[in-house]
Amino acid sequence: MSRDHTTTAFAPASIGNVAVGFDVLGAAVDGLGDRVTVRAIDAPTVRVERITGPQADDIPAAPAQNTAGAALQSLREEHDIAQGIAVSIEKGIPLTAGLGGTAASAVGAVVAAEALLSVSLGPEALLPHALDGEAVASGDRHPDNVVPCLYGGLALTQSVEPPDVVSVPVPAGLRVVLVRPDGTVATREARACLPPSVSMGDATAQMAHLGAFVAGCFRDDLALVGRALRDRIAEPHRAALVPGFADVQAAAREEGALGCSLSGAGPTVFAWCDGAARAEAVREAMTAAFASHGQQTESWVTTIPSQGARVVEAG
Amino acid sequence: MSRDHTTTAFAPASIGNVAVGFDVLGAAVDGLGDRVTVRAIDAPTVRVERITGPQADDIPAAPAQNTAGAALQSLREEHDIAQGIAVSIEKGIPLTAGLGGTAASAVGAVVAAEALLSVSLGPEALLPHALDGEAVASGDRHPDNVVPCLYGGLALTQSVEPPDVVSVPVPAGLRVVLVRPDGTVATREARACLPPSVSMGDATAQMAHLGAFVAGCFRDDLALVGRALRDRIAEPHRAALVPGFADVQAAAREEGALGCSLSGAGPTVFAWCDGAARAEAVREAMTAAFASHGQQTESWVTTIPSQGARVVEAG
Repeated sequence: MSRDHTTTAFAPASIGNVAVGFDVLGAAVDGLGDRVTVRAIDAPTVRVERITGPQADDIPAAPAQNTAGAALQSLREEHDIAQGIAVSIEKGIPLTAGLGGTAASAVGAVVAAEALLSVSLGPEALLPHALDGEAVASGDRHPDNVVPCLYGGLALTQSVEPPDVVSVPVPAGLRVVLVRPDGTVATREARACLPPSVSMGDATAQMAHLGAFVAGCFRDDLALVGRALRDRIAEPHRAALVPGFADVQAAAREEGALGCSLSGAGPTVFAWCDGAARAEAVREAMTAAFASHGQQTESWVTTIPSQGARVVEAG
Repeated sequence: MSRDHTTTAFAPASIGNVAVGFDVLGAAVDGLGDRVTVRAIDAPTVRVERITGPQADDIPAAPAQNTAGAALQSLREEHDIAQGIAVSIEKGIPLTAGLGGTAASAVGAVVAAEALLSVSLGPEALLPHALDGEAVASGDRHPDNVVPCLYGGLALTQSVEPPDVVSVPVPAGLRVVLVRPDGTVATREARACLPPSVSMGDATAQMAHLGAFVAGCFRDDLALVGRALRDRIAEPHRAALVPGFADVQAAAREEGALGCSLSGAGPTVFAWCDGAARAEAVREAMTAAFASHGQQTESWVTTIPSQGARVVEAG
């Protein structure tokens, strides 16, 4: 392998939990993502070479603390890969925004490395290493962003060991609104505010919502999806971390969103909408609601792509 | 209406919870059920006229304590029905067996009364009254037997007020084994042994199982259904109420059952199987396992009918 040989993967942002499936459901989103480039190096190690993007300085460059670096270390170790790898990360996903940025860097790194090293592992074999990478940022091997980023689409994780990922059909015409206010929520902090248990009533109600949601997606029944798209597990505890959340959610619903909740741990808030026109109106309403709480925002109207992280350049 | 006018409904037995959906999922079963006959009477009241079947003496005959009687009282009250109704119940479903017997009598009564009175209410309007009936036996308005008995098929209840019932497709070739050991489990007792809350990990794992189960049913993917058909919510606490349960479950799995758990609160144990031949082998293995614990059993191999309770005789 020549020293100039590089491979770049694009790894999409993702919505963790998607309201209805705390810790087990996630959705990739189109058009927003990290670009991760790997390069063969002589030293038999993993090196984080370059991190670019607006918040690059906030990302740890030590390989064991960097989600891309740690994912590559895990990959090399398990598969006895002698080849050293340098990784460069072009952050397209805002940090600690609830958009799966740490997961995307980890997933992008292993997907790019798979191509660089010409080892055909496939998503099931890459998953544990991406989870190892994600764990250095979030403190645990959470699948809700890693899985949709790696597999694409709307993905339900029944098990990570062994991987058992269920792809759920995305309803036709679905548009996703993402509105990110200023401010950050650290995943660890957002986890710390959750209680260790849930009431039997909340657990069974949430189970019913997730089951109904999956049925609605298979039937392409957006009315059913809308009745199911709610969160009794995490949102009640985390909403307070995002100033104005209740008003933003109410505004989205008043404009006809199917559902609206925190993207992952927040502060980004997402809404699911039937069609692009509705989505634009919902985006405006959500943005205005944040503004009334003095929050500047960045926002997107996007879709859920069927494809996850993929190699975009090799040479 | 002539005093001789009667209507009889057949109301099927049902499997509450179906392992994966505690309190929110249920399945009707074919060939086993109660027959409930209603008759117009002069007195403006509800009267329980006759209860037949092996355990008839154990069923309260006071209308307010009888699930059929209470359901009819609720129906008359809400819809200002002056006509008095006498109800007779032919119990085909064993009592306190976990087969939805109390729910079937309540559902059969309201379905028969709807026809007798020529009021076209439909399942959504009948549901609250059947739940009122069920509540006098189980202490609460649980939908997990009432809903599949009324709607038929495999039914997920997202909400009872207003009714939001999601019909889940039954995989092709599915056979259901039911094995009922001697002994009874009272629903109230089985509820009392459940903790008021579940750990976050169990709640999210069970959510993933239910979501995966629904996806497996829509895809007709019995392997996925088999990986999902498990219960971390109720079974761990209730298994001890059924002597030999662990061995029966292990025997079913060894014979290739997709899943095996308590039917409702038990003691009946159900298994889902791919095809009739497998189901017969599983039934034998489960029966033998109960026998090795000194338990005599009654057993069935059946299917999940798409139709729920229905009028079978009117005249």
